Amino acid sequence: MLIVVALGGNALLQRDQPMTAEVQRENAHRAALALARLAAAHQVLITHGNGPQIGLLALQQVASPHTPTYPLDVLGAQTQGLIGYVLEQELRAVLPDTAPIATLLTLVEVDLDDPAFQNPTKFIGPSYAEAEACRLSAEHGWAFKQDGTRWRRVVPSPQPKHILPLQVIRWMVERSAIVICTGGGGIPVARTADGGWMGVEAVIDKDLASALLAREVGAEMLIIATESDGVYLDYGTSRQSMLRRTTPAHLRQHLHHFPPGSMGPKVQAAIDFVEHTGRPAVIGALADLDSLLSGSSGTWVEAASNDQ
Amino acid sequence: MLIVVALGGNALLQRDQPMTAEVQRENAHRAALALARLAAAHQVLITHGNGPQIGLLALQQVASPHTPTYPLDVLGAQTQGLIGYVLEQELRAVLPDTAPIATLLTLVEVDLDDPAFQNPTKFIGPSYAEAEACRLSAEHGWAFKQDGTRWRRVVPSPQPKHILPLQVIRWMVERSAIVICTGGGGIPVARTADGGWMGVEAVIDKDLASALLAREVGAEMLIIATESDGVYLDYGTSRQSMLRRTTPAHLRQHLHHFPPGSMGPKVQAAIDFVEHTGRPAVIGALADLDSLLSGSSGTWVEAASNDQ
Repeated sequence: MLIVVALGGNALLQRDQPMTAEVQRENAHRAALALARLAAAHQVLITHGNGPQIGLLALQQVASPHTPTYPLDVLGAQTQGLIGYVLEQELRAVLPDTAPIATLLTLVEVDLDDPAFQNPTKFIGPSYAEAEACRLSAEHGWAFKQDGTRWRRVVPSPQPKHILPLQVIRWMVERSAIVICTGGGGIPVARTADGGWMGVEAVIDKDLASALLAREVGAEMLIIATESDGVYLDYGTSRQSMLRRTTPAHLRQHLHHFPPGSMGPKVQAAIDFVEHTGRPAVIGALADLDSLLSGSSGTWVEAASNDQ
Repeated sequence: MLIVVALGGNALLQRDQPMTAEVQRENAHRAALALARLAAAHQVLITHGNGPQIGLLALQQVASPHTPTYPLDVLGAQTQGLIGYVLEQELRAVLPDTAPIATLLTLVEVDLDDPAFQNPTKFIGPSYAEAEACRLSAEHGWAFKQDGTRWRRVVPSPQPKHILPLQVIRWMVERSAIVICTGGGGIPVARTADGGWMGVEAVIDKDLASALLAREVGAEMLIIATESDGVYLDYGTSRQSMLRRTTPAHLRQHLHHFPPGSMGPKVQAAIDFVEHTGRPAVIGALADLDSLLSGSSGTWVEAASNDQ
């Protein structure tokens, strides 16, 4: 079975962990062990988030007297290198030497008219107390939004329209390679008037890009691996309840439960994949990867029988 | 004909140019135009240096209060993302939409016993006056060496032993993709005692790694594109003379002419490729790419007729 596994930022970096190479490598090692078990029986395409890492790179650049600073598309490309490397290295450590592994830089086309540019929702970088967020906002012109009790920088997150190296990814799939691609949702680019390409100051949501990838390569399943063990209604209240088995139609009725820039795009990505393909998507904890596959943990999203 | 083209740091950044994304994009655009002409008639694998870029990332990190700083292998991975992205984007602008382009993250194995770890020779980052170099050396424990009249940071540059995703690169070649890989000489990694992989604090020479790649994929020619229009004997003196056609044996006699960390490894890479394959290598200016191919400019290195 061909499966796309989207690794949340926490696969490499849990909340409040220091962002050292060692910590990311340890977390990647755990992810690699779970992915290797999956890869023993299935063909796996791996995508990953980049929120904490791209935010740190941006911070380091503006804090350094050594100019220049790079725009978000270039920083996104750097995080594909950084995270892709650590993941590939740890996968190589746990897989047979003969296992073909390919980490592919991935440009993804977005639309410059996307309404997301008017309303930044994608969290990047560390979280701050309100006063510190205000100071950073004034100093760098960055937008901030509340994330729980703290504040984080937000950037526009336009819809992914087209994965540029899709043909190459398909070839890799044909050869049964384990492919790491579409990292951080892909490097956002847009067409220029003269037929070229320009980078775009944005961070595409990695779950939406993963759903697009999964559709385009004909994946039989989309697994969205995150911090949470599943999708909750009334999360954080006394009435919270986890959805175990659900449908796109049911999720649509409850979209207001899921915050943008967090569970919202994961739910949207699952809806998107299931509605377009009729195949299942599952949202749950990376630690439960084996049981997510079988449906014994996480939130399983499938087409309603009368939708099929 | 299958050709490996190794782009020098100057393909994206000429000496003393500001290291902005715009400047790198303009230079990449010029490189892409030349590469596209080559790709119209031949199959092309592209590698690139990363000296200026990896040095800047290291500087920005140590100058920023936002820890952590990453080791050189991780920074190397970031530069593969950064430079690979800019090159791919500019190639896509000048090639037909249907041209398959793949930028592949490339891990390269090195030997921890390599004598290069005792004698750093690879220049990275900007150049400094002597006093500033002394200050940086004292502050960060970095090694510096003289480069012309100025000083630059130097790091160990071990021999590339094995290109880890070689099989995947071969598949891409079979499908006639234009592949950008082995950027910055590859991300240096070494085996650990437990069969895993560890990152290595080094920058592999991109020309030596390109020669290894060219041998391993069966390239018919290796083009080393640099700032200089060819290889000179007695460079910078009144007796300087450019070699137009030469052999590995002849170059070996003159190896002392070529500084380590600069023309030295280019000459060594050409010798290595020609001696192993009996096929030609050429060293010259990126601007002359068309005539390098035909041998009408640059320094053409071929097996002596009595070597064949």
